[in-house]
Parts: sequence; C-alpha cells; structure tokens
Amino acid sequence: MPQGQPLVVPDDGLTTRQRRNQPLLMVHTGDGKGKSTAAFGLALRGWNQGWSIGVFQFVKSAKWRIGEQTVLERLGELHEQTGEGGPVEWHKMGSGWSWSRKPGTETDHAAEAAEGWAEVKRRLAEQTHDLYVLDEFTYLMERGWIDVDDVVTTLTQRPGRQYVAMTGRRAAPELVEIADLVTEMRHVKHPFDRGQKGQRGIEW
Amino acid sequence: MPQGQPLVVPDDGLTTRQRRNQPLLMVHTGDGKGKSTAAFGLALRGWNQGWSIGVFQFVKSAKWRIGEQTVLERLGELHEQTGEGGPVEWHKMGSGWSWSRKPGTETDHAAEAAEGWAEVKRRLAEQTHDLYVLDEFTYLMERGWIDVDDVVTTLTQRPGRQYVAMTGRRAAPELVEIADLVTEMRHVKHPFDRGQKGQRGIEW
Repeated sequence: MPQGQPLVVPDDGLTTRQRRNQPLLMVHTGDGKGKSTAAFGLALRGWNQGWSIGVFQFVKSAKWRIGEQTVLERLGELHEQTGEGGPVEWHKMGSGWSWSRKPGTETDHAAEAAEGWAEVKRRLAEQTHDLYVLDEFTYLMERGWIDVDDVVTTLTQRPGRQYVAMTGRRAAPELVEIADLVTEMRHVKHPFDRGQKGQRGIEW
Repeated sequence: MPQGQPLVVPDDGLTTRQRRNQPLLMVHTGDGKGKSTAAFGLALRGWNQGWSIGVFQFVKSAKWRIGEQTVLERLGELHEQTGEGGPVEWHKMGSGWSWSRKPGTETDHAAEAAEGWAEVKRRLAEQTHDLYVLDEFTYLMERGWIDVDDVVTTLTQRPGRQYVAMTGRRAAPELVEIADLVTEMRHVKHPFDRGQKGQRGIEW
C-alpha cells in the first residue's frame, strides 16, 4: 500500500512531510505466528533503503540460528562488498551478547536481559541504527527484568530518526499507548494443534 | 521456536517424521499490517533452505516495486552466481504478468487474475516451486474472479512437497478450513489513524 491515505488530518502543527518523517515505534504482539517474521521482513525492507539495521534477539536460549539471521547477515556482507543496501548487526542473548566478554549463562537471564537493554539504550542515544528489531522484548517487562517506565521514557525520548520494531506476546498497555503501529497476530489455527511438530524452513 | 512440541499426538497413522514433512498451507488474514511482510519473511527463510521460491502478487496496480522484491530477486541472483540459497521468481499482476505477452490493462482485472491463478495451477501440477507466496490472493475469490472450490481442490490435491502461503483480508471459510496454519493480523493501532501517511521503508 504505497499510497496509504490518512483517515484524518491531525491538528499537530506539523506539515505532511514532517509527519511522514516521524520515526515509528511498531509493536507485533498476540499469540499467533508471524510477529518476528514480519519484524525481520521490515528489516529486509529497511536494508533495501540503505538503513543501518540492528537486530537484538532477547530469547532465553538463542544458540540456534534462524534463517533470517543467515540471510540478513549475508545482506550485511553484501553491503560491505558492493555498497548495496545497508549494514546489518545481529545480536542475541542466550549464547551471551556478542559485545560482552562474559559467556552466556543459563541461569541469570535477568542480568543478561538488562545488559541487552542497556546496550540498546546506548545505541539509541548515539543514533547507531535506523531500525532496531527488539525480538521477544515484551517478556523482559512481563518478568520484571527491565522496567516498563524506563522503556517508555527511553523510546519516547529517543533522538533523531530511529525506527523501533518490537515483538512478543502480551505487550504492556504502556507500550501499546506510546506505539505508532500495533498489530496483534492472533492464533487461528496451527499445525501444533493437531500434533505436527515444527518444520525446517517454516519455524526456523 | 525451533523445538515446538505438539499439544496432542494425532491418530493419523503417520510417523512423526512423515507428519513433520507434510507441506503446509498458510493463510495470513485480518485487517492489520504484517500479512504480506510475514509471508515474504517466510520466503527469506525458505531461500535460506535452498528452496525454489515463487512469489505471485495479485494486486490491482503493482507497477510499484516493494523492497522485498528487490531483495529477494537479488538473493535469487546470488543463488545463480554462488549457489547459495535457492532460486527466486517474482511475478506481479497489474503491470501484466511477466510470462504473458499481453500488457496489463487497468480494466480487466478479472481476466488477469484468472490468468495468474491458471499459471499457479500449472506450476503446482509441475511442482515448480517449494514455496508459493500468493499475495493478496483472497480478494480474487471475494470478488468472484476465481472459484473458491477450484482453489480448495487444487490446493488440497497438490502433489509432492509444496508449501503455499497466501495473504489477504477476509479469507473464505473454506480456505481457513483446509489451511494448516492461519494467523489473523488484527489492526490495533496504525499511524494512518492519526493522519500519518505511508512511509518509505515501512510501507514499501
């Protein structure tokens, strides 16, 4: 939908161009599939615009590698080699954040999660990326590992033109409130329901 | 979720392996964003597995080119050059299907849609691709341009191991019935609501 028309013209003192250029905070929530897949799809789109992409997977045990990581990192290499698209960084918890000297532990997820968020905050302050994908990020607040007020303040006050897409079930109401775009991926039907296990190429 | 555990073990006479290898029919429906983005994300994942990807965009006016097309076609080139991933074909209605000698018309969408579906049927019979993305496909049935019974019969009887992902609002109940995986992308909040227009890198 390249020519989406707004339903209302807001009285916010901004020109259409200024309004169009406001960076978005996007939330994919709900119990259905497609939350992360769609967020990585946005990364693909951003790469094509030459954006700097930073993916942060806040998953407990991310020792496995999903197809999107391989492809997006390959696209990042392509950028370095040919100048096409933009740079890509992909970081994940679980195996220990790549910038950290400490190996990941299976026990202290809270500390690892807090460390990941602290790094994202630093990068937002320094305007490191154009698009941040914070995958499975909602759980950190749900479990009390990071503070939702801190997240709200950081995201609403982030400088410049930085897009943020976050995924995870049960997004906090405070996040939905400050988000520009929220989609609930609702589970209607899944092969697991009838006893089919996850499939290569589909689940990972 | 690489190690999804089934909730029930079905009494269908199949082994876990046989069941796991059943190709899926996936439907992304609902009024929210992310339906197509998640389907193209699946294409990314499939490419990484070396699958042959066929994308068919059934949109009225697809003269514009979305970022995913550029990137997935680039990945298809990479496959030809280096053997990485799989081959990619991207076809779209609106500007006239690429296999057709007839230019697209702005008037006869019904005929163009039917022609696109006929080609997808031929390819399914010949097992041309491993993953078919049928983007905005539900509208064709809604508008009566193609017959839902024909689609149901074709998809349920497709040979071999061919995955199909289709997108579009208001998927017919018959499609939901035969689908293996259905996600409803529910609109919660969108920048259009408050007068913000579509953005480069986000909407296309």
